[in-house]
Amino acid sequence: MRTCYTGQVSTEHLGQTVTLFGWVHRRRDHGGVIFIDLRDREGLAQVVCDPDRADTFQIAERLRNEFCVRVTGLVRKRPEGTTNPALKSGEIEVLAHDIEILNASVTPPFQLDDENLSETTRLTHRVLDLRRPQMQQNLMLRYRVAIESRKYLDGLGFIDIETPMLTKSTPEGARDYLVPSRVNPGHFFALPQSPQLFKQLLMVSGFDRYYQIVKCFRDEDLRADRQPEFTQIDCETSFLNEQEIRDIFENMIRHVFKEVKGVELANPFPVMPWSEAMGRFGSDKPDLRVKLEFTDLTDVMKDVDFKVFAGAANSEGGRVVALRVPGGAELSRSEIDAYTQFVAIYGARGLAWIKVNELAKGRDGLQSPIVKNIHDAALTELLKRSGAQDGDILFFGADKARVVNDSIGALRVKIGHSEFGRKQGLLEGDWKPLWVVDFPMFEYDEEEQRYTAAHHPFTSPKDGHEDLLETDPGACLAKAYDMVLNGWEIGGGSVRIHREEVQSKVFRALKIDAEEAQVKFGFLLDALQYGAPPHGGIAFGLDRIVTMMAGAESIRDVIAFPKTQRAQCLLTGAPSEVDEKQLRELHVRLRAAEVKTAQ
Amino acid sequence: MRTCYTGQVSTEHLGQTVTLFGWVHRRRDHGGVIFIDLRDREGLAQVVCDPDRADTFQIAERLRNEFCVRVTGLVRKRPEGTTNPALKSGEIEVLAHDIEILNASVTPPFQLDDENLSETTRLTHRVLDLRRPQMQQNLMLRYRVAIESRKYLDGLGFIDIETPMLTKSTPEGARDYLVPSRVNPGHFFALPQSPQLFKQLLMVSGFDRYYQIVKCFRDEDLRADRQPEFTQIDCETSFLNEQEIRDIFENMIRHVFKEVKGVELANPFPVMPWSEAMGRFGSDKPDLRVKLEFTDLTDVMKDVDFKVFAGAANSEGGRVVALRVPGGAELSRSEIDAYTQFVAIYGARGLAWIKVNELAKGRDGLQSPIVKNIHDAALTELLKRSGAQDGDILFFGADKARVVNDSIGALRVKIGHSEFGRKQGLLEGDWKPLWVVDFPMFEYDEEEQRYTAAHHPFTSPKDGHEDLLETDPGACLAKAYDMVLNGWEIGGGSVRIHREEVQSKVFRALKIDAEEAQVKFGFLLDALQYGAPPHGGIAFGLDRIVTMMAGAESIRDVIAFPKTQRAQCLLTGAPSEVDEKQLRELHVRLRAAEVKTAQ
Repeated sequence: MRTCYTGQVSTEHLGQTVTLFGWVHRRRDHGGVIFIDLRDREGLAQVVCDPDRADTFQIAERLRNEFCVRVTGLVRKRPEGTTNPALKSGEIEVLAHDIEILNASVTPPFQLDDENLSETTRLTHRVLDLRRPQMQQNLMLRYRVAIESRKYLDGLGFIDIETPMLTKSTPEGARDYLVPSRVNPGHFFALPQSPQLFKQLLMVSGFDRYYQIVKCFRDEDLRADRQPEFTQIDCETSFLNEQEIRDIFENMIRHVFKEVKGVELANPFPVMPWSEAMGRFGSDKPDLRVKLEFTDLTDVMKDVDFKVFAGAANSEGGRVVALRVPGGAELSRSEIDAYTQFVAIYGARGLAWIKVNELAKGRDGLQSPIVKNIHDAALTELLKRSGAQDGDILFFGADKARVVNDSIGALRVKIGHSEFGRKQGLLEGDWKPLWVVDFPMFEYDEEEQRYTAAHHPFTSPKDGHEDLLETDPGACLAKAYDMVLNGWEIGGGSVRIHREEVQSKVFRALKIDAEEAQVKFGFLLDALQYGAPPHGGIAFGLDRIVTMMAGAESIRDVIAFPKTQRAQCLLTGAPSEVDEKQLRELHVRLRAAEVKTAQ
Repeated sequence: MRTCYTGQVSTEHLGQTVTLFGWVHRRRDHGGVIFIDLRDREGLAQVVCDPDRADTFQIAERLRNEFCVRVTGLVRKRPEGTTNPALKSGEIEVLAHDIEILNASVTPPFQLDDENLSETTRLTHRVLDLRRPQMQQNLMLRYRVAIESRKYLDGLGFIDIETPMLTKSTPEGARDYLVPSRVNPGHFFALPQSPQLFKQLLMVSGFDRYYQIVKCFRDEDLRADRQPEFTQIDCETSFLNEQEIRDIFENMIRHVFKEVKGVELANPFPVMPWSEAMGRFGSDKPDLRVKLEFTDLTDVMKDVDFKVFAGAANSEGGRVVALRVPGGAELSRSEIDAYTQFVAIYGARGLAWIKVNELAKGRDGLQSPIVKNIHDAALTELLKRSGAQDGDILFFGADKARVVNDSIGALRVKIGHSEFGRKQGLLEGDWKPLWVVDFPMFEYDEEEQRYTAAHHPFTSPKDGHEDLLETDPGACLAKAYDMVLNGWEIGGGSVRIHREEVQSKVFRALKIDAEEAQVKFGFLLDALQYGAPPHGGIAFGLDRIVTMMAGAESIRDVIAFPKTQRAQCLLTGAPSEVDEKQLRELHVRLRAAEVKTAQ
């Protein structure tokens, strides 16, 4: 057995004979001596093979990259000037007494330290790609996050209860992955989009504190950072109020960051109502590292000559905002043009701006294509509200609120993270968590002309808002909360409805009639009748949290065997064609025409 | 927030005012006072409601079974003679100052303490069924087994790495659950039967020590104790030999039993070659609590007049054994008849026996329908070998080895666990673990006229047995091992093949040609080329381990939401019919005729 991991041999082993296992990361011949960088999951160590030991040296000469070997040798100090402070083993080397080739390797299709591999190459040769030190560290980081979450939750009496993977299809929400049943012809299981209903049922069953680190499935068109299967840290607890629930999970994330990254997150996290987040940042997941905020001007712009502003300010659901960028007067015309193109992605039809060159000069101190169409009172008010100072630029958004929020919200983050933004000190801090709370219960679906659940239909309304379910659903707020970190939603949850009469009111607000409710959610409604406890919970996106902590570019870099954006596994070739016999047993057949067309 | 769980309030809270949450387990009115057994997941506590406190008493009068309540009150000693030593809270009671009804309950469809519920009732009302203290304890036990396994493995540097749930269908092995791909028409994912190949790939990638507590899927006809989805504690490690691997996982199970049940398992576990287990017990998973063994008589019976014995002894693959049962001469004719019917289940065409009344009398001291057809030499030898003593009975099996092993092996267990067996001291000890090792590499499939892998085709042959792959596959033993406890296989694993040339030899022995191997296992074969390390592992059946530890009758009692034997979830109604639109998106259609016929 080995003495320790290769990456962990260090000065504490000086003078000892150690046995190491690992892979040949690199071999160098230098002055008649062979140097091997031996690698395992914990890192590298330098092995020296001296021609004095003929047998060992002969074996060393046969070594090539990625050979798997056992090395036994003496740990000694590296000669002066050859230490490598980047390695734990950087001050020592192992003088090989004995080398055993456990397995040879053909020449790998790429160098492990090649940083310019295509994703296709990496995913096709995933087994080798995973040998790269960065990938080893990413998956070990992922493990530390998971196990530290478990330790924390275990300490508070949460218990991991497995919920089914083969479950019932629910026509609401995202598209289900379906699994045909062989024993029940014409019937299908669905893979779970989340264990939401099951965890609520477990609370009704009295398990009191539940968690699960669990695979969930959504058959959606894959955007850059989505996977068909993803992992949630899924939690639920009974008998606690919203604040108590949030405290537990805020502490969990603080614990994980402390233990895994050595990072102390803010304590407590700031708490921001949804309306404030949308008002100040145009986003329900604001990146608080960016020190820029919206100035709302909707009421100010109703009677200006500039039609774009006045039109948005006077239309229902319209919004006009300014984004003050300190020091932004130095931005060039081409930079502003680039930002104009950027906001167009989010539907903005232009990007009005005012450079504040010298406030003291009044209108003459402002440079802008639009300022002539804004009367004095409005101009004075906008400068006052925004706190504009000499050298600033003000960008404007004026459109439907959603377009303004999306486009200027994105612009805010874009500028903050730009080279200019960093130079201007518009980006501050490494980790900025917050809670966004008091979400609306419902969103109005213009197409279907009805309210839909903003979170999910089991979310409890805020205390005192129950009557609004019937009188003014749009004004009804929910006991829903998102944990946001650096502009990413990393967790979301709510206090659930535990009383059947409230649940019925919510269904009525959603125009789901009793029969439909019974078909879709009957087993939950039944359960609520039997003394369901007050309960609530949260689900964290593990892939996302680890991606952020690893500083990775994609969640595919923190998943061992991910799918491509076409939902394929390039390593195994899944999905694949199957035998006709298999399909017959499952009582399905291919729609031949369609399959042919697509192929 | 609560002071503690209801089930944990005890004398240490005497004189304190506590707040408890829970459910009304039972309400009794006695002498003008209301007694409530309040229940949560940790147990019961007695709450007393005095008419002196009118408000609280009025609320108490409204309480019914399964109401969910908060109780605040004073902890005081129970009056003499009313203590309940079965409860942690048995010496105290809580005098209610304040009761809040958090949620009412309609009358449950059954009493929680009804022990005679049908499984259909229990699974249909699973949410209430799970409230039963036994089910609460079972799932908490399951959690403790899982988390203690994690803690142990974490301490040894094992890391949990998630492998895909949507993976590739492999035509070998059990039937796959398939998932049609929407994005790739005509193509299907399969749900994994185990992460076997992925964990081997992770070893090749250098992760060195892997574990995962993971759902696996097999679409098999469900026997009493199978589920479509089941959970494995799946482990793999590199650079260790068979003994070292077994030691790690033997220690894990010892750790789990110690921490969770307070049970000290044998240290070390006995290790028994497969051939010995089959020889002595007719089983590769012998229940060592039963102190009965086979006596092999095949060589002795070749020339006796009794055709059943001689025929089996002289035919290829035949076997003749005796099972000596101390004290069994007292078994009645009807008991022996019942055993004869029992072995018939396993294909035995009869059950010969000899009662040993008085050895000193020779043949006259034996009582048996068959003894007259066994000549003196054979009789003497069988009595000698079996160690027969006055008062014993000898049962015989004579048939193909498989039938003898199955039937007399089952009889051995049956007698050991019978009332007679317990009385005779034939059953000894609570927990009897062992390793069964040195399995054959291959089994001969008479139908297909070829060898098949006894374990799986990636299992390494024993050292020195590599040549047998080509010369005598049937004699080739494997580095495969099963952990057996009380007659159940609770874990199985092997050292894997890590060299491509050995893997190719195994495929040749299995008559899998290179092309077929490439199609089925190409990604593993490719991986083996790149310096794959020596590695091996094991997979434990979590459901089974917990079932045994809980003393439950079925694995369905240790799974929160199990399926029936028709693979249905009676709670949610899964599997269910789905919209035609969903099927169209997945490029499949129902085979209408078949579906109709089956409905």
